[in-house]
Amino acid sequence: MTEPLTIWTYDWVPPGPRGHVRDIRLRWACEEAGLTYDVKSVSFHDRGPEHFARQPFGQVPFIEDGDITIFESGACLLYLARKSEKLMPRDPKGEAATLEWTIAALNSIEMVSVPWWFIGLSKDANNPLEGWLLQRLQHLDAVLAQREWLAAGQFTVADILMTDALRVPKVRAAGEFPALRSYIDRACARPAFQRAYDGQMAHFAAGDR
Amino acid sequence: MTEPLTIWTYDWVPPGPRGHVRDIRLRWACEEAGLTYDVKSVSFHDRGPEHFARQPFGQVPFIEDGDITIFESGACLLYLARKSEKLMPRDPKGEAATLEWTIAALNSIEMVSVPWWFIGLSKDANNPLEGWLLQRLQHLDAVLAQREWLAAGQFTVADILMTDALRVPKVRAAGEFPALRSYIDRACARPAFQRAYDGQMAHFAAGDR
Repeated sequence: MTEPLTIWTYDWVPPGPRGHVRDIRLRWACEEAGLTYDVKSVSFHDRGPEHFARQPFGQVPFIEDGDITIFESGACLLYLARKSEKLMPRDPKGEAATLEWTIAALNSIEMVSVPWWFIGLSKDANNPLEGWLLQRLQHLDAVLAQREWLAAGQFTVADILMTDALRVPKVRAAGEFPALRSYIDRACARPAFQRAYDGQMAHFAAGDR
Repeated sequence: MTEPLTIWTYDWVPPGPRGHVRDIRLRWACEEAGLTYDVKSVSFHDRGPEHFARQPFGQVPFIEDGDITIFESGACLLYLARKSEKLMPRDPKGEAATLEWTIAALNSIEMVSVPWWFIGLSKDANNPLEGWLLQRLQHLDAVLAQREWLAAGQFTVADILMTDALRVPKVRAAGEFPALRSYIDRACARPAFQRAYDGQMAHFAAGDR
């Protein structure tokens, strides 16, 4: 019998980020692939040396799988993708396509959308990253107008990352990109996403007590 | 006899970005691993549908290897890493460590440093991403004060990405992080980096003609 893998997240977060803490990406992947997982918590308020030893930037999530620990949600997803072809096809072309779109979500979309969102928290107008964000979303919209999922003609971890980057309410509302919106809706309608979302919401609600 | 792989980059760029166009990451990896490669060019000035078909954001680099094409420098490096254990160890723990630090370079460091740099082009003071950047660099400095290379006790593709993110002159000059600076110097002193750098500089100089 294999030990289930463990997803580590915070014990609690404020209401704002609930539903968007990045452990949802890992939960979602496990739900899609039917991988058994436990969820364990580190303190949100007290991030000590033990936490930094496992996540050098003091963030979550990270996973433990036997004697392997791994941080960065994108790295965790590529690691999990090796466990199930529901998350990444096994042929070299399909694997390359999944890999490039996984990195595109992290380094072409989130590299603009996350700082744009962050700046928007304190600045309503003239966000200096706005033009760049809209350009990236426009390119992505053109791609998604032509296909259901990003890579290899199937749902993959690249779609988990890209959807999670795009479904942030302010990002979703940026510009007029119909293909992006129906992509987000299509992905979030998957039962595995809903189970992951409900799981995260219940986890943080339990931390309120 | 295997066909060499092809690294695609621009035919020319202005002097500013020379030495920093991301094909250098792929050249560097190939030089470290002793992989034979060709370099081919797409037009910097005219980015048509054929370019977007291979790189949906109209950027470079991308690679061709037989019937596989792959874009995003981070994805290309993880793809190349499978070809040589000089770029990533073959044991599961070493591979996981290489993967997490590769993604950390892309999504924990560049996600802050690249937009910070971009905003700095038009705004000298009060960069809204400054505090976040310094915090990330401080965490990374603490890690690099304890080790020579990021992952698995050896130089890997994670070091190529992290070094290339950090050696951007403004990023290198941000804050006082002695471990980061000696890490950058150590990595850039490698003959493979120097060959990659010289190769890129010669390529764009040839485009001036």
